[in-house]
Amino acid sequence: MPVTSFREGGNTTDIKSPSRMRDRYKRLIGLTGYLLDHPRLQLSLTELSGLLNVAKSTLSEDLMFVKDVLESTGRGRVMTQVGVQGGVVYLPNLDRIRARSSLKTWVERLMEPDRLTADGFLYMTDLLFDPKLVEPLGELLASSFTECRVDSVVTVETKGIPLAMACARALGTEVVLIRRDSRLSEGSALSINYLSGSSRRIQSMSLSRRALKSGSSVLFVDDFMKAGGTARAAADLLGEFGATVIGVGVLVATREPAHKLIDNFWSLLEWHDNAPSQVVPSEWVNALCRIGEEQ
Amino acid sequence: MPVTSFREGGNTTDIKSPSRMRDRYKRLIGLTGYLLDHPRLQLSLTELSGLLNVAKSTLSEDLMFVKDVLESTGRGRVMTQVGVQGGVVYLPNLDRIRARSSLKTWVERLMEPDRLTADGFLYMTDLLFDPKLVEPLGELLASSFTECRVDSVVTVETKGIPLAMACARALGTEVVLIRRDSRLSEGSALSINYLSGSSRRIQSMSLSRRALKSGSSVLFVDDFMKAGGTARAAADLLGEFGATVIGVGVLVATREPAHKLIDNFWSLLEWHDNAPSQVVPSEWVNALCRIGEEQ
Repeated sequence: MPVTSFREGGNTTDIKSPSRMRDRYKRLIGLTGYLLDHPRLQLSLTELSGLLNVAKSTLSEDLMFVKDVLESTGRGRVMTQVGVQGGVVYLPNLDRIRARSSLKTWVERLMEPDRLTADGFLYMTDLLFDPKLVEPLGELLASSFTECRVDSVVTVETKGIPLAMACARALGTEVVLIRRDSRLSEGSALSINYLSGSSRRIQSMSLSRRALKSGSSVLFVDDFMKAGGTARAAADLLGEFGATVIGVGVLVATREPAHKLIDNFWSLLEWHDNAPSQVVPSEWVNALCRIGEEQ
Repeated sequence: MPVTSFREGGNTTDIKSPSRMRDRYKRLIGLTGYLLDHPRLQLSLTELSGLLNVAKSTLSEDLMFVKDVLESTGRGRVMTQVGVQGGVVYLPNLDRIRARSSLKTWVERLMEPDRLTADGFLYMTDLLFDPKLVEPLGELLASSFTECRVDSVVTVETKGIPLAMACARALGTEVVLIRRDSRLSEGSALSINYLSGSSRRIQSMSLSRRALKSGSSVLFVDDFMKAGGTARAAADLLGEFGATVIGVGVLVATREPAHKLIDNFWSLLEWHDNAPSQVVPSEWVNALCRIGEEQ
């Protein structure tokens, strides 16, 4: 068996035997697998070395390899803390290739000729409830808020729920659900009525008193926005809870009216509902995903 | 630089240089990352070799390593097809450790003294809408149906949506949403009325005609079941669409009544609502997660 030692780039690696090398391959694969399956979680090096059955010093060395590859390929960041209380957190980056291909699918599907209902609505429920399609968009939306404090993602039932969940997942937080009417199963609640811009009807929304901590910083997410009446009403209701809406994210916003009832809204897609109906990614989405630059 | 060649277990590996070895480490990490980020998708070897910038023969060799580690550690299965049209699919296994720890958290949280509302309901909305808590349970539920044909996961709004999405994600399918009332935005719909066992009120549910293909095989998922009236009604409505409900999965079922209005239901947790209120994992869940066997 060859026994060799070499030094390169400041690291010393011992090749004591082929099987030792294979062990390292296996450790690196196992470690990569573990990190990717546990994103955004603080993992202790002690626990990790137990789980992967490897000495802490070896683990630290392996981690540097994995960190280097995951970061240099743009897959995510690996944050390590050294010392006895040492830990590691894996923070996935936005997968721009997946986001771009997903946006392309959304635009194609939303332009299908039978998407418009007899009443002129854009049917999107099937797409909104497909995890493969909605998760990349939740990640895309979340990527605009990774630098902000987001205690919760808030949505109002029903169709915005999958996008809100995907967004909360990417931000490592949870969803607070505003109901259309108050429910016995949620205890006492605060309700408001408002005039919906889309339906020109009085609508109500209601939030359980126990659902949100005072002083929360929240992101409001919904599937569709026309004038922004629902988002405005949600911001008012959330204000009663002492919460601040730091941004509003929607999947599709109509181009008209250009002036919405809320500020700081981020729509992924824009719908021009003049004939023929047209759906396009928003400017900021184009820039973020570098649409037009693909080969 | 040492140049060595060795044979072990039928494979020939050339250690031409330390940097070549490092290249392999990097390739293995990159490949593992890619597979785990693209579960349940058929990936072509040609595309993959382009994306990872590696020759197809090298990729095939690397794949064998990754397959071996992911499979021997129980993380998932790597299915490869050889030949010109060669491809690979990564199928994650149920993460029993995560499922077990998640069940423990659910039980603890649901036994918190202020969980019961003044009207005797078990407040669960906050937990149901936390991706970290609901996803492992969606995977757990899905693991009972991986051998079945599941074209869609069906739920009725609202609180079962996150569990249904998590389950659909794990099964590689999408969710079909039954509404409480029909919506203009979803075109023509089929509605039924039924007597809810929990509220003793007449309730209705409605499904858009375009939501489901005739002949579908579906899994119905909901957050809560008492007598099973909602699941029964959903099965009836789905029958009108020519769909077959192959199973019903719920997060929590009450122990009483023991006889439910539907068969083949799988509840993750059981709620004994006599005083004091008690929540425990179901038998099949205990067996699957080997609860009681942990160290």
